Amino acid sequence: MNSSIIRFVLGYVLKVEAVLMLLPCIVAVLYQERTGFAYLLVAAIAMTLGTLMTIRRPKNHVFYLKEGCVATALSWIFLSFFGALPFWISGEIPSLVDALFETVSGFTTTGSSILSDVEALSHCALFWRSFTHWIGGMGVLVFLLAVIPLSGGSHINLMRAESPGPSVGKLVPKIKYTAQILYVIYLGMTVVEIILLLISRMPVFDAITLSFGTAGTGGFGIKGDSIASYTALQQWIITIFMILFGVNFNAYYLILFRKFKKALQMEEVKAYFGIIFVSTAIITGSLVMGNMQFADALRHAAFQVGSIITTTGYATINFDAWSQTCRTILVLLMFVGACAGSTGGGMKVSRFIVMVKTMTKELNSYIHPKSVKKIKMDGKPIEHEVVRSINVYLITFMIIFVVSVFAISFEGHDLVTNFTAVAATINNIGPGLSMVGPDCNFGFFSDFSKLVIIFDMLAGRLELFPLLILFHPAIWKELFTQKITMRKKLKF
Amino acid sequence: MNSSIIRFVLGYVLKVEAVLMLLPCIVAVLYQERTGFAYLLVAAIAMTLGTLMTIRRPKNHVFYLKEGCVATALSWIFLSFFGALPFWISGEIPSLVDALFETVSGFTTTGSSILSDVEALSHCALFWRSFTHWIGGMGVLVFLLAVIPLSGGSHINLMRAESPGPSVGKLVPKIKYTAQILYVIYLGMTVVEIILLLISRMPVFDAITLSFGTAGTGGFGIKGDSIASYTALQQWIITIFMILFGVNFNAYYLILFRKFKKALQMEEVKAYFGIIFVSTAIITGSLVMGNMQFADALRHAAFQVGSIITTTGYATINFDAWSQTCRTILVLLMFVGACAGSTGGGMKVSRFIVMVKTMTKELNSYIHPKSVKKIKMDGKPIEHEVVRSINVYLITFMIIFVVSVFAISFEGHDLVTNFTAVAATINNIGPGLSMVGPDCNFGFFSDFSKLVIIFDMLAGRLELFPLLILFHPAIWKELFTQKITMRKKLKF
Repeated sequence: MNSSIIRFVLGYVLKVEAVLMLLPCIVAVLYQERTGFAYLLVAAIAMTLGTLMTIRRPKNHVFYLKEGCVATALSWIFLSFFGALPFWISGEIPSLVDALFETVSGFTTTGSSILSDVEALSHCALFWRSFTHWIGGMGVLVFLLAVIPLSGGSHINLMRAESPGPSVGKLVPKIKYTAQILYVIYLGMTVVEIILLLISRMPVFDAITLSFGTAGTGGFGIKGDSIASYTALQQWIITIFMILFGVNFNAYYLILFRKFKKALQMEEVKAYFGIIFVSTAIITGSLVMGNMQFADALRHAAFQVGSIITTTGYATINFDAWSQTCRTILVLLMFVGACAGSTGGGMKVSRFIVMVKTMTKELNSYIHPKSVKKIKMDGKPIEHEVVRSINVYLITFMIIFVVSVFAISFEGHDLVTNFTAVAATINNIGPGLSMVGPDCNFGFFSDFSKLVIIFDMLAGRLELFPLLILFHPAIWKELFTQKITMRKKLKF
Repeated sequence: MNSSIIRFVLGYVLKVEAVLMLLPCIVAVLYQERTGFAYLLVAAIAMTLGTLMTIRRPKNHVFYLKEGCVATALSWIFLSFFGALPFWISGEIPSLVDALFETVSGFTTTGSSILSDVEALSHCALFWRSFTHWIGGMGVLVFLLAVIPLSGGSHINLMRAESPGPSVGKLVPKIKYTAQILYVIYLGMTVVEIILLLISRMPVFDAITLSFGTAGTGGFGIKGDSIASYTALQQWIITIFMILFGVNFNAYYLILFRKFKKALQMEEVKAYFGIIFVSTAIITGSLVMGNMQFADALRHAAFQVGSIITTTGYATINFDAWSQTCRTILVLLMFVGACAGSTGGGMKVSRFIVMVKTMTKELNSYIHPKSVKKIKMDGKPIEHEVVRSINVYLITFMIIFVVSVFAISFEGHDLVTNFTAVAATINNIGPGLSMVGPDCNFGFFSDFSKLVIIFDMLAGRLELFPLLILFHPAIWKELFTQKITMRKKLKF
């Protein structure tokens, strides 16, 4: 394995994080908060370490899928660990596991919190918390690819390992430009949301942090009641942007280059909007029957549906108290997730489309055993390899899901809590039902359960395999034998 | 489609059912119960109809997979409908949907009941209820294959459509002898259990009906508290036989022909016993910590684990009141199910083995991208087609599961009830948790939900596709056009 390139990437990630951490420092200066020093200290450490790790450029720039996965997984772990340090050093989150939980939840755009009182945090902590969503949403390695000059090609393996969804295409032949275009769209949409929220008379700090949370489909709020206390107009703006950030970014790319027809024909996007429409309609109906005003019902239904399917996790109301039908729809939406190639998590609409098509194809094969039709998407046949990888993903997802529910069940909480706690974190949503409902937090779990959930959040964000591969003995063996060879070289 | 052979098979199924229905008539005579007339009447109707349908032998004996599936699905629907009539006619179950639910639950060896007071039933009704388990356990078409002279080959498609598990092999070259051997093992083991229960001083009626329920891995008891009021020895006998009936029958075949070594090396059987051992150990530990005597804890743990993993569904205790860890284990076991080629339901241990192997193979492919190892089972590589069909099975299972939970959620019961009601019926287990726990019944559901659950039970027993295919428009089109052609032939 080419471990020097992994070291190099990790060093770069640390340097980028150090620079990004200066933003909360600026916030601290503006609000005259002393906790800002913690961020400055960690930024300095990260910059030093990062510089040391990137002094020597790797000779070999070749990146295979293996290196891509290991580099991605380790980057996210490094990022989370250093990102958690300021919370811990400043004493705002006294337990290191809790601080790590909160940061992983931030970077993976989950939005589950262990804090019982969010509003007690300093402004710079709140800013950093929301900013981790924005960084994690599009991916830090995609950012690196857009910025640093890694020559030699085959970096698509880095991007593949980090980007949500079953398949990543290059928008343009050069991976660097693809990454740049993605970040331009991402930044542009975030800015538009901030401006719209400011026009709706939201305070600047709220507008910026909430837009970060929306853009990354994260879900950390800065108030105890999430989004409930904002005006109806502001809630609608957030609803629309949540849903927009859950759309496959390829669609925006197509629109940007005026290929409107092609953008409108994307099957996944059509299905995504279809699911949102139907779910919102049913829930609105159920709420109206429960004697809610139609306008309020529609607003709450659309907000919650958009929040759950895009795996954002904001809430305008305690949906845990809704009828069973509504709760069931929301739990199902947790698994569907947003579109591939968006900032959202979950299993992704496109995977579900392929699954349904697989089922109907199988049924047809019973009737016409000799037909050999391929499954199509957007009119093009899907490669057998993609179908296979989706099956494998589903199986692995289920295994991790089941093992996690089992692992945290030892604490003795009820089934709905355990089930939805794992569902809400492995799908990077945030709130679940029962004891982890939108009015509650994850603080009551033991450290062991928190570590399980941290694993789930990372596994969900990195789409399982890049993280799982770290647990493969062969990887450690390879890293280890290489070190020995290096040591031998030094000695003799 | 060759619809005349389907008609012929259906007719034969009805004749067999008519003959089998004479057994509850005998029970009625012994206990001098007037409800026996209902069984006699339905037997007469079924025999007449069956004879009419089999007068004309089909010219073409060729059976493709399509015909196999349609014949199997329709057979089970016919079987259930006529099996339900006596309950309804005798007035012991006043609602036809309820009677159908109970009978489908019987034939599919689910064991979920809508009856609140089982002990109020007459002896012949109790006997028929338990006997449906025994018929459904090994499958009525397998029975047909063992008995009727269907020449022409390719009847393995009938057996494939009905037998539990991902792949059915012929034990011996001729399918007829395979079916006979299976039924001989099945009958032999049932008789041994009856004898052992009689030796343990169980009343004859109880011994016979409970053995039927064990053999078919069904779960209908004849007492309100299921198996709780029997002695510890009797409970242990049932435990052991439940577990034995969940073993792949190929193992017994191998043992019968003194291939002990090969039988002991079957990976699925080893995994099956491993899962039972670990689950029992954890639950025993949890119960002992809850201040239960060790001997009692072990007995209850082993019984419940055996009952759930083999999808029997008997209970010696209300496990819904157990700790969350125990309840979670039991819910997970619901999905694992018994071995392929046994009488048990669920997803089958072998499918899980293949899934886990698929996952590890995928992980390995990240590290050694060029290796092309096939997944192996019992030392032999598994055909790509089998792996694919397991994936498709899983996807289809999940889709049906989710749609069912969603459909019954409109009634407004809690999530655990809805989730475990579907889990317990699609896996052919019987009791779930919460409102469908072992102390409760399914009677409170609306007719619509009951029909959904009836569909789930049949889909689970027939392993999804043979039933789903009935809903494919092409099947109806083919049956329909054929009728038209036939009519045309008659006219012109």
